[in-house]
Amino acid sequence: MEVLLFAGSLQVGSLNKKLLRIVKKYLEDKKIKHTLIDLLDFAMPVYNQDIEKSTGIPATVQKLAEYIKDVEAIIIASPEYNGTISSPLKNTVDWLSRCKPMPLTDKQLLLLSTSPSQFGGVRGVWHTRVPFEMLGVHMYPTMFSLERGNMQFNEKGLLIDITVEKRLKKLIDAFIVHIQKFEKI
Amino acid sequence: MEVLLFAGSLQVGSLNKKLLRIVKKYLEDKKIKHTLIDLLDFAMPVYNQDIEKSTGIPATVQKLAEYIKDVEAIIIASPEYNGTISSPLKNTVDWLSRCKPMPLTDKQLLLLSTSPSQFGGVRGVWHTRVPFEMLGVHMYPTMFSLERGNMQFNEKGLLIDITVEKRLKKLIDAFIVHIQKFEKI
Amino acid sequence: MEVLLFAGSLQVGSLNKKLLRIVKKYLEDKKIKHTLIDLLDFAMPVYNQDIEKSTGIPATVQKLAEYIKDVEAIIIASPEYNGTISSPLKNTVDWLSRCKPMPLTDKQLLLLSTSPSQFGGVRGVWHTRVPFEMLGVHMYPTMFSLERGNMQFNEKGLLIDITVEKRLKKLIDAFIVHIQKFEKI
Amino acid sequence: MEVLLFAGSLQVGSLNKKLLRIVKKYLEDKKIKHTLIDLLDFAMPVYNQDIEKSTGIPATVQKLAEYIKDVEAIIIASPEYNGTISSPLKNTVDWLSRCKPMPLTDKQLLLLSTSPSQFGGVRGVWHTRVPFEMLGVHMYPTMFSLERGNMQFNEKGLLIDITVEKRLKKLIDAFIVHIQKFEKI
Repeated sequence: MEVLLFAGSLQVGSLNKKLLRIVKKYLEDKKIKHTLIDLLDFAMPVYNQDIEKSTGIPATVQKLAEYIKDVEAIIIASPEYNGTISSPLKNTVDWLSRCKPMPLTDKQLLLLSTSPSQFGGVRGVWHTRVPFEMLGVHMYPTMFSLERGNMQFNEKGLLIDITVEKRLKKLIDAFIVHIQKFEKI
Repeated sequence: MEVLLFAGSLQVGSLNKKLLRIVKKYLEDKKIKHTLIDLLDFAMPVYNQDIEKSTGIPATVQKLAEYIKDVEAIIIASPEYNGTISSPLKNTVDWLSRCKPMPLTDKQLLLLSTSPSQFGGVRGVWHTRVPFEMLGVHMYPTMFSLERGNMQFNEKGLLIDITVEKRLKKLIDAFIVHIQKFEKI
Repeated sequence: MEVLLFAGSLQVGSLNKKLLRIVKKYLEDKKIKHTLIDLLDFAMPVYNQDIEKSTGIPATVQKLAEYIKDVEAIIIASPEYNGTISSPLKNTVDWLSRCKPMPLTDKQLLLLSTSPSQFGGVRGVWHTRVPFEMLGVHMYPTMFSLERGNMQFNEKGLLIDITVEKRLKKLIDAFIVHIQKFEKI
Repeated sequence: MEVLLFAGSLQVGSLNKKLLRIVKKYLEDKKIKHTLIDLLDFAMPVYNQDIEKSTGIPATVQKLAEYIKDVEAIIIASPEYNGTISSPLKNTVDWLSRCKPMPLTDKQLLLLSTSPSQFGGVRGVWHTRVPFEMLGVHMYPTMFSLERGNMQFNEKGLLIDITVEKRLKKLIDAFIVHIQKFEKI
């Protein structure tokens, strides 16, 4: 069983990328095979069917599709942009949905979010689920939203509040148990 | 009173652009001042705050913001991509939301959609509303979704079914009456 | 111009009813005509079309419809139940939607929420908008969600935090200015 | 493995109840253990926390909770009321969410819808998912919406269009395969 991790923001200093590095460290501790990628390394144009028709699906999209094909589960940490899915994430999903076979089908997906606001992206995650569910992704029902993300990490990138860390790890544990059920079959 | 029209798809042969040309013609007949633009002429990168920080808001975004500032109302016709807002439209909104002053505030917006499916984009419009509402846009409650859009236009780009045309025109009429209420003040 | 106020909870000690009493007091200060009602006084069965067919729309629903017909604007304060619209509010909307003429059409509606949670109902308001928008209600885009509502009111039912009170009053002011635009026509 | 089936409408002649009888017959053919219940037999008041505090959770809710506890999976067929979840279904979920232990946690749920409209409830299902997901239900990503439901059944209650029947059965098959994965563990 392998898990792919990526953030829904392109920003180098993204809080959601910080959050994923915590998750990555925890998966290492749990000896769960995983890969952390950065959408910045898969630059793609804004979706336009004419591009697809003239030059095909971009190589970066196809490369990302390969990463997804190889895993059973995905963990995405994403900010909300204007109360809903971030444009980099929506654009990535729209391109991926054009690949054949469509790599997202039947994947297990856990959604996390953080933002500097008091809501931590809790509105956006509910809209971020939608395109994935449309594409046949099994969304893990419980999600994790971390408010005031700009005050939650110390200089080493670790979570300052141990109760936050415990809540995150508990959710990761539950998600891993859930996806391992499928793998054992 | 002036209305700005644009589609949420970049595709040259977009069904939603066809739909907007019908609306444009009707606004001409009604002598309502309007401008039809194409997001293709406002090419912008996928939103990344690092771009904004290093080189500022792209000139295309600022130019689009100028168009929006000048009007009281906007009509957008947009496909749904994977059941929700199209990535070109979400990306455009995310960039616009960074402009100061933010041009969308207090605008009146009517949302139309068409697609080749039997649902005509009726799911997507409900998610497409969200970022606009977050930004203080007054969304006109009634919307218009045209199913099987690939079979609705004749060679001249006119709507084949007169009942569809009447339904569309009735909605445009109601929207114009609504926004004129504000203008008369 | 008159405003109708009611809460989306039936509970006598509802935090949202407390919030509305603050709003009511402010409307009094501003000399805006208004009526505060309680859905408890309009008891209605869970919606069942068979009831409607056999005994008609309940008298309580018709009475509520009369209150709505008489006003230009509505302010609802509602908790979220399980992340979305409260069942008392959904049930009320479903019954109202069967009245002819349907009283909600073209009303202006401002949505507030509070709850004991850290999110204050901010997820639920986005789903609570939907049935109203389907019914032709003009939803005011900005909303107000008050987190930890159980700690926000003093013994006299007043808001403890003056910045919260200012934020609420600023929104009420903006909403009143908006609806008065229509009235002046 | 056992499946519970119920409709989100109380109406005796409900199209969604008709749809569920087709599903029930198919589960019989497949020798999948199942129970079809009718929410009419579990009459409950509109949710009010004061009722819960004074007289406890109604016996009908507790009885329904027992049915749910005993199954691995649930199939709900529900109309949309005003573009979102039906009030009988929302009310049922809100009451169930108060039971301890909360019976819906970790259940697998497939959502179907039909209505006389051309959209067949396709908007509503996306909002109907939300409270279940909030409560930890694993929503099957693919759903089934049957447009013009009033013209889809013959006098014997069978589906007239064989392609519709095949599409429905294919989805039931996929859902059963999915939930059986968990059972075999």
